[in-house]
Formats: sequence, C-alpha cells, structure tokens
Amino acid sequence: MASHKSTPLLKDELDIVIPTIRNLDFLEMWRPFFEQYHLIIVQDGDPSKTIKVPEGFDYELYNRNDINRILGPKASCISFKDSACRCFGSTGDSKSEIIITVHVVDSDGWMVAKNPSGEDINALEQHIHNLLSPSTPHFFNTLYDPYRDGADFVRGYPFSLREGVPTAVSHGLWLNIPDYDAPTQLVKPRERNTRYVDAVLTIPKGTIFPMCGMNLAFNRDLIGAAMYFGLMGDGQPIGRYDDMWAGWCIKVICDHLNLGVKTGLPYIWHSKASNPFVNLKKEYKGIYWQEEIIPFFQSVKLPKECKTVQECYTELAKLVKGKLSSIDPYFTKLADAMVTWIEAWDELNPSGDASAKLANGVGK
Amino acid sequence: MASHKSTPLLKDELDIVIPTIRNLDFLEMWRPFFEQYHLIIVQDGDPSKTIKVPEGFDYELYNRNDINRILGPKASCISFKDSACRCFGSTGDSKSEIIITVHVVDSDGWMVAKNPSGEDINALEQHIHNLLSPSTPHFFNTLYDPYRDGADFVRGYPFSLREGVPTAVSHGLWLNIPDYDAPTQLVKPRERNTRYVDAVLTIPKGTIFPMCGMNLAFNRDLIGAAMYFGLMGDGQPIGRYDDMWAGWCIKVICDHLNLGVKTGLPYIWHSKASNPFVNLKKEYKGIYWQEEIIPFFQSVKLPKECKTVQECYTELAKLVKGKLSSIDPYFTKLADAMVTWIEAWDELNPSGDASAKLANGVGK
Repeated sequence: MASHKSTPLLKDELDIVIPTIRNLDFLEMWRPFFEQYHLIIVQDGDPSKTIKVPEGFDYELYNRNDINRILGPKASCISFKDSACRCFGSTGDSKSEIIITVHVVDSDGWMVAKNPSGEDINALEQHIHNLLSPSTPHFFNTLYDPYRDGADFVRGYPFSLREGVPTAVSHGLWLNIPDYDAPTQLVKPRERNTRYVDAVLTIPKGTIFPMCGMNLAFNRDLIGAAMYFGLMGDGQPIGRYDDMWAGWCIKVICDHLNLGVKTGLPYIWHSKASNPFVNLKKEYKGIYWQEEIIPFFQSVKLPKECKTVQECYTELAKLVKGKLSSIDPYFTKLADAMVTWIEAWDELNPSGDASAKLANGVGK
Repeated sequence: MASHKSTPLLKDELDIVIPTIRNLDFLEMWRPFFEQYHLIIVQDGDPSKTIKVPEGFDYELYNRNDINRILGPKASCISFKDSACRCFGSTGDSKSEIIITVHVVDSDGWMVAKNPSGEDINALEQHIHNLLSPSTPHFFNTLYDPYRDGADFVRGYPFSLREGVPTAVSHGLWLNIPDYDAPTQLVKPRERNTRYVDAVLTIPKGTIFPMCGMNLAFNRDLIGAAMYFGLMGDGQPIGRYDDMWAGWCIKVICDHLNLGVKTGLPYIWHSKASNPFVNLKKEYKGIYWQEEIIPFFQSVKLPKECKTVQECYTELAKLVKGKLSSIDPYFTKLADAMVTWIEAWDELNPSGDASAKLANGVGK
C-alpha cells in the first residue's frame, strides 16, 4: 500500500441509506457490519404501510408523508414507487455529520458475499477503505489500486501523480445474479457471475461508466449534491435508469472537480433476479435513449467557473435541457427536477458549499 | 461471453520474440506452450557469443551482425545492449504471415505462473484470447472483459458499442516480483505481488498507461509498425524506458485508429528482481523526463489524415521532435530514429499498408 490506511469510522461519520417497500428482514444477515451505524430508511410506496425493522438497529424512517412535509413543493423531485427515492436519504438528515453514505437496496436478494477463502465479506469496511484512500484518475496503474496492501505504483507511473485525488465514490459489484439489462437477462437467464475479481480501480478521467446503485458508497460532502437519482417510476416514462443517471452526472462532475471514482471490491451476493419482463417495460426507452444520452455526457464540458458540486449540477441541468429535450419532453421535466433537487439540497444543508470542505476532505 | 471465441493459432500465425544475452534454459519450462510456435530470438550484445537454445524449438536467431546486414545504415534505430533490441524481431521476418508477436524477456526470472487452483497458466492461450476478442475502449464495463465466459455487458452499456473494436495489444502482468521503478524497489525491497486478479480489461480511450514489455502480445498487422522500443542502452542517456516509450506511442495510435489495448491476465511469474542500483542509473533521467513526456502524450492529437499506423507514427515523430526536444537533445535523435524505424519497417514489409488488413483483422 502506497501510504494510506483506513480507520474505522465513527457512528456519526457513516450513514446507510436503504430504500424499501417491505420489511427489512435482510438486515439480520448484515447485523455484525451495520449495527454500529445509523440507518436512514426511505420507505417507498404507500406510506400507511408499516415497515418492520429488526430490533437493535439505530435508524430513522422517512415515508412519503415525511418527504412531502420536509421538502414541501420541492418533494416533486423525489421519485415515487422507484428506488430513485433513495436520494432523499442523503439530503434528508442535515444535522448529522454524514461523511459517507452507503446505498443498499431493499431486496431480500441482497446478501453478504463470501471471499474465495469462504469468509464473509465486510462490504462496509472495503467501501470505507476505498473512500478514505485516494483515487488515481489521471494515469492508469496496471496493478490497480496502488493504495492497497501489497500494491503500489508500477514503473513508469509519474511521481507527481502518486498523491492521487480525493475519492468521492466507491462502486461495489455483485456476485451470482449479474446486473444485466432486460434483453441480456432474457437471452441468458442462467448466467451467474462466479468470478471474484480481487481488484479496486479508479475509473480514468474522461471515461463514463454504468453505475449501479445496489452497492454504492460515496462521500456526501464531496459529491452528495450530485447524487440525485432522477425522476423514475410512478408517472415517469422510464425506470431502472435512476442509478445510471446519477452515475453519468457524478462522473462528469468528479472529472471536472478533480475527484475520484473507484469500482471493483466490495462484492455483495445477489440471490434473486428481478423479473426481466417487468424490467423490459421499465427500461425500453432508456435502452434507445442512452444511445444519445451517453455521447452527450461523454462530450459535456463544464465551465471553469463551476467550482462547487451545486454549481456544476445546476450547469449540467441547463445542458440537459438544451441538448436532451429534443429526445423527449421528459428531459425538460428532468432538468427542472435537477434544479429543484439542488434547491432542496441547499435548503437542507445550509452550510452550503460542499467544496469548502474539500481541503480537509478524506483521502488527503 | 458475449459472442467471441478464441481458436488455437496456426504455427505461422504466431511468433514469439525473445531478446536475450544468455542461454535460453528458461525455455524448458515453457516447452509445452511454446514448442508448437516459431521463436525469433534477438541476441543482444556481443555477436560472437553463442546462445544456447534448448533442443526441439523452431527458431531463428538474429545477432547484431545480422541486424546490421539486414537493415544496413537503418540498423542505427535498433538499440544495442538493451532489451529494446527486441523490436527488430517483429520487423525482421517479413515472409511469414505473423499475426501475433509475443515479447518475452530473456531472464531466468521469467517463469510459468500458477493460477489460484495451482495449475500452470498458459500465458500464450490467454494472450491469444485477448487479441482475438474485441476491446471496448469507448465505455467502461464494470464486469471487465465482456467477452470472457460467464461475463457480458452490464445494464446501462450502450448496445451500439457492444461489437467492440479490434484488439491490437494484450498486456499481461507479473506475480511475485512486481514491476517497480528503482526508487520503489529501494524503498520496498521485500514487497511481492501475491494478488491474482482474475480480470482482463480494456484501457479506455484517452487513457495512457505504463506498458511493460515483459509479457506482451500484439497483433503485428494492426500495430506492429508502432511497436518500436526507442533508443536505449549503449550510447543512450536512459534505459528501462523502452517499453514505456512503445506503450505511450501505441496507445495514442490505437486511440486514433479505433483499436483496443487490454491489460490484466495472463500472469507470468517473475522470480528474480533486477538490481535497483543499476536500475536507478538507467532510469533516473526517465523519472523526471516522464513528468513532461506523459502530459505530451496525453494531449497529442493526430490529424485525421493519418490513416495507417505508419502515417500516425511518422506524424508522432514530428511532434516528438517539435515538443520534446527542448527537454534534451536526445529526443531529436529519438525522433529521427522513429522515422528510420518506419523506413526499415516499410522496407521489410513491402505490402505496406497495415490498415488495409484492418477490415479483415482479428476480432471482427
């Protein structure tokens, strides 16, 4: 490891955001890892339904009524009947010193994975390590993350770049049921991901990637204001693109602000495939829209004047409206929701400028 | 695996280039994998010395006298007393239908590695698979190479990009002694790379990387003319940057010509560290020069008119002369050698235009 060590985070430094429509029995399996931290549960769907949380966990639960009460008219930017509602969890609790937010999903299928030695993987610990050690977006290291034990920068890696940049996002992977789109699910119903790839790597600057929201951690101070999952689900023309949307946006902004995005470890185990027919219905517009959206994000250049995440995101909203609205009127609505989201963020986070904390950010 | 399969290559489709200064006893270990192919041995240093090759291998051996005889005055572009001489091996044999050239190094330290199940790794087979399946430089796939068994493109990967592009280079890794520069060797003399990362990935477009020449395969038709290892060793101010130089050049050209570069598997086992003091002497200029060279390569834009590898390389030589000569007069000499190399290449490969074969290239 080049120079950085992870330390366990204090309780008020890490929150776990869980969007859910059902009882959280799956938490039992995660008890040894999650119990010491604070859970922010975002209940999706019917707010009159009671969600059961296993005993012993410290949590707050927000349902739709809470979201409407807290955000008022700005609640319109929070999706309903879609896991995109999760983003409320990271705006919502403005009083705690949240540093890292881990997004897990409600599904029973979300399980603790085992490493090749048969031991349970502490996904949180790995995410924390990823986020507390720097990223290296400016040059590729062929031994992957140089900040891991037993690794370093290889010959030919510029010394001036070895300090790295602060890590904003840690994107973990799944074993077993792979994260495929509906067409691939339909074509390969029996494919399982059995390959444990023991690597973490920084996604290079300028490279966009498909970010999955199932096993995702981020530094709220550094990038939280851009971790918005768009308008999905109830009343919207698409679903299953909430995390993709957030991923495209955060990557462009991280590149602009010199922040890092890592992918790879930790793995979680995904035991239950979602229904490919339902998925196809949610996804099909996204499947052809992304052919235009991705080139848009690949070519976005944010102006130098944008120095905070909020400024970047507001600028991005303008560009989305200007360049993507021709695909579908949905993008005009989405661009407006992006602006509303930033307004909601600023209202709930009055300290304002996330970048002010950059100088003391993690990974320094 | 998305759609592509490797087939074993015929004898005249793969050559193994070995630069060496000593007897090739290490080949015994590689016999089961190498014996069916043709070896091109480039003897470095004193040509009167006899190099012993174990029996049963099909090979040609070129020493300095052969290089001088074949290339005449153009032999000046081939380094002496440095493994950079290896590039002669891929220009040299213009009559065979070389498709893939694997560069291995002479060292006794170059051994067959074992996978986590304890089986010998057939590095050639993996390189062949890497080169015969496409690359995906335009978008990152979080499950790594989508063309491997049990993997595919993840949700959110644009369908229009799933055909990939032809793969020009396969960059394998080392287990045990890591490929560190002299300062890191000195600081961490006991570090060993024990982590078997079961992944192959495409290095994204626009990202430069530190290419090591120890375990390297490439498609000669697609990129051979740019696989030039510069002027190193005897009479030159630096060493140990031969592969780095080639790596920077090929990556810029692959990006321009829409070709792919993969890194990851296969591993070889590196048993013997080179002397860090000797390495420091060879490297130290490179260590500070690279701080300017790498930004140069990161910003190089080749003109659209460059449609063949030779045209790209000749243009790159001009840019090197124009932009890097201010670092040291060495770069003027190097730029001239790059032009000489292309002249030598064209002379020995009269069929000329490598890109003419692109349409029928591997990975299509």
